[in-house]
Amino acid sequence: MNKQVFAFEEGDGKNKALLGGKGANLCEMTQIGLNVPPGFVITTETCLSYLNSQTDSLPEALMAEVQEQMAALEEKTGKKFGDAGNPLLVSVRSGSAMSMPGMMDTILNLGLNSETLNGEIEQTGDAHFAYDSYRRFIQLFGKVALGIADEPFDEAFAQIKKVKGIKEDIGLSADDLSVICDEFLSIVKQQTGRIFPEDPYEQLELAIKSVFGSWMGKRAIDYRREFNITADMANGTAVNICTMVFGNRGDDCATGVGFTRNPGTGENRMYGEYLTNAQGEDVVAGIRTPKSIEQMAQEMPEMHQQLEELRSRLEGHYCEIQDFEFTIERGVLYCLQTRNGKMNAVAMVRTSVEMEREGLLSKKQALLRIDPQHLEQMLYPRLDPNIRIDALAQGLPASPGAASGMAIFDADRAEKLGREGDQVILIREETKPEDIHGFFASQGILTSRGGKTSHAAVVARGMGKPCVAGAEGIVVDVNLRQANIGDIIIKEGDWLTLDGTSGNVYQGKIGTVEADFTQELNTLLSWADEVARLKVLANADTPADAAKAIKYGAMGIGLCRTERMFNDPERLPMVIEMIVADDKLQRQQALDKLLPIQRADFKGIFEVMSPRKVIIRLLDPPIHEFLPSEPQLQREIEQLKQLLAMAAGASVLGNTMNLLKDSHERRITDKVPLPQMVDPSLVEDAINKKQSMLKKVRALYETNPMLGHRGVRLGITFPEIYSMQIRAILEAAAECIAKGMDVQPQIMIPQVSTVEELKFIKQFADSIHAEVEKSYNLTVNYKFGSMLEVVRACMRSESLAEVAEFFSFGTNDLSQATFSFSREDAENKFLPLYNERNILQDNPFEVLDREGVGKLMELAVKWGRNSRKDMSIGICGEHGGHPNSIHFCHQIGLDYVSCSGPRVPIARLAAAHAALGE
Amino acid sequence: MNKQVFAFEEGDGKNKALLGGKGANLCEMTQIGLNVPPGFVITTETCLSYLNSQTDSLPEALMAEVQEQMAALEEKTGKKFGDAGNPLLVSVRSGSAMSMPGMMDTILNLGLNSETLNGEIEQTGDAHFAYDSYRRFIQLFGKVALGIADEPFDEAFAQIKKVKGIKEDIGLSADDLSVICDEFLSIVKQQTGRIFPEDPYEQLELAIKSVFGSWMGKRAIDYRREFNITADMANGTAVNICTMVFGNRGDDCATGVGFTRNPGTGENRMYGEYLTNAQGEDVVAGIRTPKSIEQMAQEMPEMHQQLEELRSRLEGHYCEIQDFEFTIERGVLYCLQTRNGKMNAVAMVRTSVEMEREGLLSKKQALLRIDPQHLEQMLYPRLDPNIRIDALAQGLPASPGAASGMAIFDADRAEKLGREGDQVILIREETKPEDIHGFFASQGILTSRGGKTSHAAVVARGMGKPCVAGAEGIVVDVNLRQANIGDIIIKEGDWLTLDGTSGNVYQGKIGTVEADFTQELNTLLSWADEVARLKVLANADTPADAAKAIKYGAMGIGLCRTERMFNDPERLPMVIEMIVADDKLQRQQALDKLLPIQRADFKGIFEVMSPRKVIIRLLDPPIHEFLPSEPQLQREIEQLKQLLAMAAGASVLGNTMNLLKDSHERRITDKVPLPQMVDPSLVEDAINKKQSMLKKVRALYETNPMLGHRGVRLGITFPEIYSMQIRAILEAAAECIAKGMDVQPQIMIPQVSTVEELKFIKQFADSIHAEVEKSYNLTVNYKFGSMLEVVRACMRSESLAEVAEFFSFGTNDLSQATFSFSREDAENKFLPLYNERNILQDNPFEVLDREGVGKLMELAVKWGRNSRKDMSIGICGEHGGHPNSIHFCHQIGLDYVSCSGPRVPIARLAAAHAALGE
Repeated sequence: MNKQVFAFEEGDGKNKALLGGKGANLCEMTQIGLNVPPGFVITTETCLSYLNSQTDSLPEALMAEVQEQMAALEEKTGKKFGDAGNPLLVSVRSGSAMSMPGMMDTILNLGLNSETLNGEIEQTGDAHFAYDSYRRFIQLFGKVALGIADEPFDEAFAQIKKVKGIKEDIGLSADDLSVICDEFLSIVKQQTGRIFPEDPYEQLELAIKSVFGSWMGKRAIDYRREFNITADMANGTAVNICTMVFGNRGDDCATGVGFTRNPGTGENRMYGEYLTNAQGEDVVAGIRTPKSIEQMAQEMPEMHQQLEELRSRLEGHYCEIQDFEFTIERGVLYCLQTRNGKMNAVAMVRTSVEMEREGLLSKKQALLRIDPQHLEQMLYPRLDPNIRIDALAQGLPASPGAASGMAIFDADRAEKLGREGDQVILIREETKPEDIHGFFASQGILTSRGGKTSHAAVVARGMGKPCVAGAEGIVVDVNLRQANIGDIIIKEGDWLTLDGTSGNVYQGKIGTVEADFTQELNTLLSWADEVARLKVLANADTPADAAKAIKYGAMGIGLCRTERMFNDPERLPMVIEMIVADDKLQRQQALDKLLPIQRADFKGIFEVMSPRKVIIRLLDPPIHEFLPSEPQLQREIEQLKQLLAMAAGASVLGNTMNLLKDSHERRITDKVPLPQMVDPSLVEDAINKKQSMLKKVRALYETNPMLGHRGVRLGITFPEIYSMQIRAILEAAAECIAKGMDVQPQIMIPQVSTVEELKFIKQFADSIHAEVEKSYNLTVNYKFGSMLEVVRACMRSESLAEVAEFFSFGTNDLSQATFSFSREDAENKFLPLYNERNILQDNPFEVLDREGVGKLMELAVKWGRNSRKDMSIGICGEHGGHPNSIHFCHQIGLDYVSCSGPRVPIARLAAAHAALGE
Repeated sequence: MNKQVFAFEEGDGKNKALLGGKGANLCEMTQIGLNVPPGFVITTETCLSYLNSQTDSLPEALMAEVQEQMAALEEKTGKKFGDAGNPLLVSVRSGSAMSMPGMMDTILNLGLNSETLNGEIEQTGDAHFAYDSYRRFIQLFGKVALGIADEPFDEAFAQIKKVKGIKEDIGLSADDLSVICDEFLSIVKQQTGRIFPEDPYEQLELAIKSVFGSWMGKRAIDYRREFNITADMANGTAVNICTMVFGNRGDDCATGVGFTRNPGTGENRMYGEYLTNAQGEDVVAGIRTPKSIEQMAQEMPEMHQQLEELRSRLEGHYCEIQDFEFTIERGVLYCLQTRNGKMNAVAMVRTSVEMEREGLLSKKQALLRIDPQHLEQMLYPRLDPNIRIDALAQGLPASPGAASGMAIFDADRAEKLGREGDQVILIREETKPEDIHGFFASQGILTSRGGKTSHAAVVARGMGKPCVAGAEGIVVDVNLRQANIGDIIIKEGDWLTLDGTSGNVYQGKIGTVEADFTQELNTLLSWADEVARLKVLANADTPADAAKAIKYGAMGIGLCRTERMFNDPERLPMVIEMIVADDKLQRQQALDKLLPIQRADFKGIFEVMSPRKVIIRLLDPPIHEFLPSEPQLQREIEQLKQLLAMAAGASVLGNTMNLLKDSHERRITDKVPLPQMVDPSLVEDAINKKQSMLKKVRALYETNPMLGHRGVRLGITFPEIYSMQIRAILEAAAECIAKGMDVQPQIMIPQVSTVEELKFIKQFADSIHAEVEKSYNLTVNYKFGSMLEVVRACMRSESLAEVAEFFSFGTNDLSQATFSFSREDAENKFLPLYNERNILQDNPFEVLDREGVGKLMELAVKWGRNSRKDMSIGICGEHGGHPNSIHFCHQIGLDYVSCSGPRVPIARLAAAHAALGE
């Protein structure tokens, strides 16, 4: 049997696994000479051995070791455990390796009984204090060690206060408290059938068992599940037994908690609160208002000085912000606990940078102490943390950040009001590509249907706008322009606030805190860039996005999605014209109109990004996504027919016009403003057009669009589309080069499954390239690459690499294909249950599945570099912005990750972590 | 420069690549002493070198070698090339390594000119013959070597016949023919501007060039593309120059073609046709009716005897059925050509078995000479090959075999008539699961929509019934019970014949030939089983299928699809009840009704298959597939509402009832036979039910059903479904074991992507297993396995193998996921173009993609056996029945393939080929 108990003087302060976090720190502090009340720790090993034995007996010889330690305490304190004259009292606290605050049990004042109580009265000369300590002990021990609920104690307590006519606890006299103690003892007898244990060692043994047992208590188990503390991280709790010190024995006593620096701002000043003549729980309970630690400088200057010393010794030793507890008993400062301080991201970043400058941390340490994910809160606006208000509804946290605005139910009105300078929240049942202009104009998006991959969510994330999706409690009525949430009705123009980080929706305008892209963050990230091996690029589809990406420190654009440009309301008609074209000629005419527009798009992006590289992905989604849906078209045709009927007979068109507000056919309502007469031939024309579009929509229907006619398959069946895009890219580059800019266009082909597809596209890309160089009379260097988002592309990467000059993993699609999960269907139908039952630890669309998808990626990297040794390989799926996945990308030797703009800083830090972790 | 010309005496008869097939055989025959007219071969190398030179000059020194060979011919024959007295005439024929019959050019009688013509007349004493030879030569040479069309020659010829008042060519006198020769010569001069070449060597040189050139002629190129003859197989044509012999120089002359055995039946008797006093082209042209070779025994007994000798020497030498050409000139038999005989499958099988018995072939040779795919024609009924009739329409060959029956437009009537003993063809726009009872009752299925993977196609293939799918020329009107094909109207009851092997649809009843599962085939396949390492199992879902599978030689069932059982019209209501259940209790009640039915299914299958193994796959498809579609339900609700309206006001329900014929609600029409009154409450009830089903259908909607909530994902979200199925399997097995049978149930889980899924199912499978063993008081051995049809399952096979005891590759789904191709969408939208442009060589759903999917399979096999060394691994996708894929399965070390019953013999032979190919 290993040694089961360690005095604070002998325990290894680094061994949290064995001694728990609290115990290890108590040992450490004792050993560096801080004033810690004497005590000892029972190891976590002992806990597990007790729990695994499945018996009620503590491990052999444990109590003998405990008694030895208690004897040592008696020696140090001059008191004696169970002694009627000068009794030693102890606290018994749990403490596991992982911090689980409040999740396990604590007993104070252990050692009191009817005899030692008298000794305590005698020693302190304070009967009120002693009885108060006793009644607290009886209740706490009763609850923790004997399993008695709080209610009978609380009722008895209240009864006596009532009888005595006293309102505040503090008004009770020592005699009242004595009566309460007797009452409490009889409650224990009544509830357990046994008298309260008088023997202090019996008390101690029961307390140890109950602390051990609390490790498997419901609260603790729930906590571990909630915070994903897995079995191997969770190895039982230690028990800390420590001499009691009291902050409530007079005005030269106090108790408090402190941070060595301000955890809200990171400022290098001590921060904390204390109460004089109080016990720790009083600070927490909030009955009295604590004072700020700065006040102590006036009130107890000498103590304050000691606290400052404590602070600097703690930081000097731990090289980390400490969150500590202290008690002052009769002018003596004791440190009862310390742990690393939890701070918000702003404070973490500031302290990292400052501590590095102070020489407390190396740059490496300064980087590693910050969880990259933690930066997220600095990068998006968030609700003012000081405002507490109940949410009106809850949806999925689909795109982070907070925003307020007026509720608006259609994209056109949103655009109009947005242009006029109003703040707008766009609310829809779900959004469609044709709502995109409403996105641009809105502060945030709210939908009542759809998941984290719905159109609204994906587009909002791409734009960095807050989005709450699938808030099912909200019933949207677009025609009435209102939404019902239970009994509450939100009308157009009512103010709403969204928190896309939590998924909450609030009524009214709630203050938000802007993103804090601080100078310190820039400094920290510049250190990150120095050590990272992975480059961090951004996904950006517009010059504005690109400019933002540069602000966030992106080293280029890793994914520019050309289809996003197609969704602009000005362009969508041309795109639709191209799609519904009956022949190649008609299609070419539509494409000819799109060419200069796309060229201008790309030129704008190149200008912003020069001299960084810009990877442009050619058209990816199935083209039917640009068309309205079949039911929508049917509805619109129905409405137009009604309009026609009305035009024939009636003169009042108001109602119909209103109905048309949500339809596509803005052209008609524009041309025929209310209440004028509509030209029937115009309506007939529109009906015919819509009917031929309906035919096209039906012809383009696919059973599994995710696996359908898209990406390079479109590029091969309609080469004129890709030709237009390639020409636009290369001409845009040529125009920039002509102006003396350094541009690096890279053309990327989506959905590739075989090298023949690449060869086919490369062939006409090269010929367009030659034409462009000739007509501009200059050299345009471009690279030609392939997405790896189809499983077969991974399997054939060696062959693909003969044509592709770079690869980019599209892990969204690749994860879908690898699992055979359609993300939308999976997240709605079975993934939550899979996570709950631990069939999958994580959602593979959020956390890259290393064992399956990752293994495939690793092979693809290896095979690809077999044929092209210096192949540049990156990732541009959503995973590219997640630290865990970034770490993996580093491990398998990728060259870059690309993610949405606001995630770039997170990715830069994560990339540094990955490199430092090697 | 290599030697460019080989005399028949010196060429290597095995070197078809160099000498072409014909040339090599001429050399071989000459060298084994058969009587071949003297001649020589110009090599294919020479051809390529001429074509590659891109000039009009023959390779250097070729004509010198040719002249040497001509000199040798002159010596052998005693004639002289170009000699006016006794001229040597030769034929010039093409002949490549791959047989391309009729695709390249031939010139006969070369060497004739105005001078040698006279010598020929003198030598033969037959001016008619000589002029006839001359005019044939001029026309053929004119066409082949000088590029003159047939028309001017044919017109001139017809003109002279007309002038002379002669109808048959043979009526022309020598003088007439002489006039024709002159006329032909002037046509040549007129068309080419030059006189016809008189110099025999000039003739020969031009002839050689034109034969070489014909290799790149349009006909030849088209032929090579059509038959997938790739560049590496196609290496130019040889030129065979051979002394002319004549079968048309009197009644002791003849010409004919023969097979050493009957190519239609395989019977060991010479088979062929001949004409006396005729040239080869006369036999082919069909102007005179040839006699059967048996008649020669009477007519020319000595020659017949020589032919029999030739036959036996050919077979003895080639050890293969020979298809040969002969000419008898003045009582001397010459063999002009031989090649391996093409036969139908019945003959191939019979000759293989008989030649093995005769000692001509080893068993290995007997097996290897038959292309496994070729067996298909023996295994399905087919159209009587003697009947030639034009097809009425053409669709996709969706399930092989031929069948005739009366056209019926709905499943209910098909079932009714089928039960009454009528032969029925079920015609639908497309079929649905609820039509399944109509499939059982029909001879064949015809649809106007859908591809090779449509419901109709898949189900028909599973049942081994002929199916033509997607015959778009047919417009089906179910309400009128008729189909329009252009102007033709097919009414209910009209006879149709389908050929599911070609995709043709015929009007009327055309004779079919039954499948020939001959004794010889059994013998051959038993040899195959002896050498094959792969076991061949069958896919079968019913006891009847299982019995058929055994007939075809299946060694067990590799895939029993439980969902097929759910589609039975008696059961579908219970299945629907289960799906629309609001809670677990309701669902359990529905499942309790299904349990005894499934148990009986499995028991029936176990009884048939005992003691072979039966692998049963638990429910796989998304459950919404069992429900009607949204539009269908809407239509039905509409119809029911009409019925309700009518019930309220009108008494004549005839029309509505008719409308209801196609709907689900047979219950109502059954209960309320025409023309009685309908009970409105009954209809209201039905409407409510349908509306709640509609709600469910909408809730179950999936964007990508292929990647949705199906397979094991259903098993985990609704464990009660899999529990019922597992219980049914194990109880069925227990009941068989109790009767003393040896059964081997194996439970297979579909759509697995992680080992946790397997563990979850295995856990309750084991507990049901324990219960069943206890309640039956006996031991049931079962195995638990996993499909590998999800990419991730392949990547994680090492981990899966810790739980799974066997694996089965589902290459249909796996190919879809690996390519990110939805089969249905791909085959409709872009795969044809991909094949056409050679982006993909094959349709990966028909031919297993070795480089992508196959590579993944190979890894999965390796990794799986890392953790379970003796892991049994098979394949049960459609690829499992295709020889090329079977070969690959053998190579990567699979244990078995499973395919549809009728493909089992093909698979058995292919498995043997794979083993013999090692």
